[in-house]
Amino acid sequence: MSTKKNFTIGIDFGTESARAILVDVNNGSLAASAIYHYTHGVISDKLPESDIKLGPDWALQHPKDYINALKRTVPKLLAESKIDQDQIIGIGIDFTGSTVIPTTADGTPLALIDEYKQDPHAWPKLWKHHAAQGKADQLTQIAVDRFETFLDRYGGKINAEWFFPKVWEIYDQSSNIYHAADRLIEASDWMVWQLTGVETRNLCAAGYKALWSKSEGFPLETFFGAMDRNLANIVEDKMKREITPLGEQVGCLTETAAKWMKLTPGIPVATGILDGHAAVPAATVAEPGKMVLILGTSFVQMVLSKKEYRVPGMCGMVEDGIIPGLIAYEAGQAGGGDHFAWFMRNAVPADYEREARKRKMDLFSLIEEKAAVLEPAESGLVALDWWNGNRSILVDGDLSGLLLGYSLKTKPEEIYRAMLEATVFGTRKIFETFIASGVPINEIIVTGGEPAKNNLLLTILANVTRMEIKVADCPFTSALGAAMYAAVAAGEAMGGYATIQDASKRMAHLKRKTYIPNNNDKKTYSRLYSEYTLLHDYFGYGHNNAMKRLKNLRDVILEKKLRST
Amino acid sequence: MSTKKNFTIGIDFGTESARAILVDVNNGSLAASAIYHYTHGVISDKLPESDIKLGPDWALQHPKDYINALKRTVPKLLAESKIDQDQIIGIGIDFTGSTVIPTTADGTPLALIDEYKQDPHAWPKLWKHHAAQGKADQLTQIAVDRFETFLDRYGGKINAEWFFPKVWEIYDQSSNIYHAADRLIEASDWMVWQLTGVETRNLCAAGYKALWSKSEGFPLETFFGAMDRNLANIVEDKMKREITPLGEQVGCLTETAAKWMKLTPGIPVATGILDGHAAVPAATVAEPGKMVLILGTSFVQMVLSKKEYRVPGMCGMVEDGIIPGLIAYEAGQAGGGDHFAWFMRNAVPADYEREARKRKMDLFSLIEEKAAVLEPAESGLVALDWWNGNRSILVDGDLSGLLLGYSLKTKPEEIYRAMLEATVFGTRKIFETFIASGVPINEIIVTGGEPAKNNLLLTILANVTRMEIKVADCPFTSALGAAMYAAVAAGEAMGGYATIQDASKRMAHLKRKTYIPNNNDKKTYSRLYSEYTLLHDYFGYGHNNAMKRLKNLRDVILEKKLRST
Repeated sequence: MSTKKNFTIGIDFGTESARAILVDVNNGSLAASAIYHYTHGVISDKLPESDIKLGPDWALQHPKDYINALKRTVPKLLAESKIDQDQIIGIGIDFTGSTVIPTTADGTPLALIDEYKQDPHAWPKLWKHHAAQGKADQLTQIAVDRFETFLDRYGGKINAEWFFPKVWEIYDQSSNIYHAADRLIEASDWMVWQLTGVETRNLCAAGYKALWSKSEGFPLETFFGAMDRNLANIVEDKMKREITPLGEQVGCLTETAAKWMKLTPGIPVATGILDGHAAVPAATVAEPGKMVLILGTSFVQMVLSKKEYRVPGMCGMVEDGIIPGLIAYEAGQAGGGDHFAWFMRNAVPADYEREARKRKMDLFSLIEEKAAVLEPAESGLVALDWWNGNRSILVDGDLSGLLLGYSLKTKPEEIYRAMLEATVFGTRKIFETFIASGVPINEIIVTGGEPAKNNLLLTILANVTRMEIKVADCPFTSALGAAMYAAVAAGEAMGGYATIQDASKRMAHLKRKTYIPNNNDKKTYSRLYSEYTLLHDYFGYGHNNAMKRLKNLRDVILEKKLRST
Repeated sequence: MSTKKNFTIGIDFGTESARAILVDVNNGSLAASAIYHYTHGVISDKLPESDIKLGPDWALQHPKDYINALKRTVPKLLAESKIDQDQIIGIGIDFTGSTVIPTTADGTPLALIDEYKQDPHAWPKLWKHHAAQGKADQLTQIAVDRFETFLDRYGGKINAEWFFPKVWEIYDQSSNIYHAADRLIEASDWMVWQLTGVETRNLCAAGYKALWSKSEGFPLETFFGAMDRNLANIVEDKMKREITPLGEQVGCLTETAAKWMKLTPGIPVATGILDGHAAVPAATVAEPGKMVLILGTSFVQMVLSKKEYRVPGMCGMVEDGIIPGLIAYEAGQAGGGDHFAWFMRNAVPADYEREARKRKMDLFSLIEEKAAVLEPAESGLVALDWWNGNRSILVDGDLSGLLLGYSLKTKPEEIYRAMLEATVFGTRKIFETFIASGVPINEIIVTGGEPAKNNLLLTILANVTRMEIKVADCPFTSALGAAMYAAVAAGEAMGGYATIQDASKRMAHLKRKTYIPNNNDKKTYSRLYSEYTLLHDYFGYGHNNAMKRLKNLRDVILEKKLRST
């Protein structure tokens, strides 16, 4: 065994910022990390450098922010760790998605070209750009009418956040940009292109966001042609049929890219990957039987299996989508941590703020303290965690939140706890759906943002799922995942790994502390969960469509109000 | 017509305070008013002058507070108005009920006798003393088993707040007090006894709180005997079979009582009456076809009719109960204004408090302002107004509150408005039940406490009921009602009135401002109301007993928690 230490760089391009880490390939330990907050953040109001207004539900980004992220973070890693350049054996990146960038044939974003930059459609459409909802609905209808079997892999619906609704929106609303764009590319692939000069399309984004599958490839020309005759050949015209597996070496760092990051050219660069998916091996999961639960503003569940099962309400089911050789299922809850954020912003009385100030603690800790001393079921409340609609397993964005059991004695912390419980019940619903569909799960591993540090939430999670809850050790699992794929792309000979499984075994770790269910709470939660299920099925399966009717009525009223002012 | 002005005094004994008014009999105008807050208020913790602890749900009062109320208010009326004593032609009182006082044969409350005052059962049990719930349930069961037809007049259930559950509780838990009590009497009748030296039992309290009816009298001895053999003759032993109609002269002011109030002895005193019921003629209603809506912490609906109809979910239906010659129906919502108070205490964020302070307005006005600019249905929310259970028409205290339609954009004022709307939907449900049962209602007149001054609430009420809403002019309708019955007890010859109808025509008035429904909001609310109805029926009629199961589970958990500490 060589005494020379090898390192890889992982760069995680998130919604508001990018984070780069330098990792010891041998054991995954963090040598350095750096963060860069995008100057332009999420662009939802008007275009930069012009007064062109954006519609509601628009969300764009600035390509320069992406390049600046490289410039501002990577040099810091080297400065901080003081390692030799030649110890870096690979670079990997992960990115949000579907974040779609229209570019020229050489990869220049149209947003950076004077001729186009005043057209909003020239700009990178961030994953959470929701203005293409109409297109998504039409696409779903086309797929349903054509009996497209791929719909089963995506919970029966095409999501507005995905690649083709965004692209169709460009075609429909700005044929100028559509025709000027030689390429329409995922940000994850565009970034790898910038680093290596090589255009690839990564399997993860293609599978989860662009309807591609290993066995069937992209949908047929007749499907795309049903959007518009001129879109029939969209894959040939604007994309690439060839899809690159994860953990491959796409190419080496170009001189230009090396200069941005103050690195030497020639370092191997791995295939891009989506951010949530990169977190899976970094949370120690590279084999079937384990569920990775990513707790952020929304919650994501990832499970691997050897065989293909039809699991209702998936966001996506992709062969080789995370780990080559395995099917990777993605499920999700549209509302997760943002439930708790909503509560903190809208429902904590001033008295509590005063108490927190007096006791010199932050407001969230006070709420957490008050909620933690409650027994399960003590409040008499039960909630449906649909403040942001339901992704899995009902795949219905028109559902809304519910709280039942209010009394005149109901306290704010009881409402907060009921919201925690409801999101966890939503997780159990997904967990049970996997199992009922034949996908075995024997372990739950948690990672993510703030909610992943929420002790009470994790305790409830253990008691509701009746499973020991393990927690990934690295606070930046996506970036670590990217660094791990980089180690695989470098290969064993270079000091990396032959497979992502090997990398995961060595580089990923769990915290020592786990959350173990207790018998009493397990039983009480079983009863509460049965109430949740009854309400879930009643309102979710159309026995009472009150939520949809109310949302519809609200939209009519709001439109009328808007027109009258 | 004599130029001499005649006056009556009305004294309203409420939960926390008593209010006395001096009224011009000719036109009902207020000559003076005075309020006295009971020194002991509601006694729910421990007995006065001793450390004897009370159980949960106990609520007692101090008899001295009642007498002190006379001493502290009536002399002020005379001082303030400067009228001659001989201009006062009558005194009337109204009281909360069923508020039960055990006394000796001469009317001395056992609570004032050293031998008994350390026993909680010796004390006046206030209407909201809820510790006799078990007894109430048993009484209902007895009545059901015996096919007692009187149950129909009371929504099928005997309420823990009524006379016999409280009396049975005394018998059961303190036979000492039960046997020491020569009389068990309603506070309204006890007060008249104190004023006149004459023991009466008023028809209103007997009918609404003690199962008495004009056609059937009290339940049979066999019914009482089913509680306990020794209770079979409770009416003969501790009460009075003879019931006094409203507006009668019971007797004249005794020397003792006159001295308390600095009045001359001999002034006629009218039959006692319950506080809510006294408000009806004072809100101008003394004939069929009108609903009086008393908006307080709870909401009460009173309707008169010539014929007897079976209306589901009534709190009581009493012949001559308010106006001689008419059937008086009482319905109610267990939660009314206390919904809004709950919201203000538990759900208004600190940011709003800061905004209110900055704009120098009170917090409630700020919420009201924000809620008022919303359109109906704009929030997408709908609620069930059951924070305190449901009185009419479901008669089910185990139901609880519900809010449906939450999104991540839901604002506090939207929740507040949904709660206003839900309580009004509850009122419409009662209103429609009256009409569907054959009781005509062509007018709604509002009176009461804070909620009766809530502009937004009254606007919503107009739009939801699709009726013009009128508002009683006098802010103290119960006291005014008592003063009106006093004028009737005095009689025409003395300068009063022959009937309460006549008194009502002359002495009661409406505000000029009314609330008129608008067509747009009426339509929107019809749609929201149909959602309310769907949820009301689903959760209220046992399709999903989630609320009861959760409450039951909560009680089990709380008991366990209590035992373990």
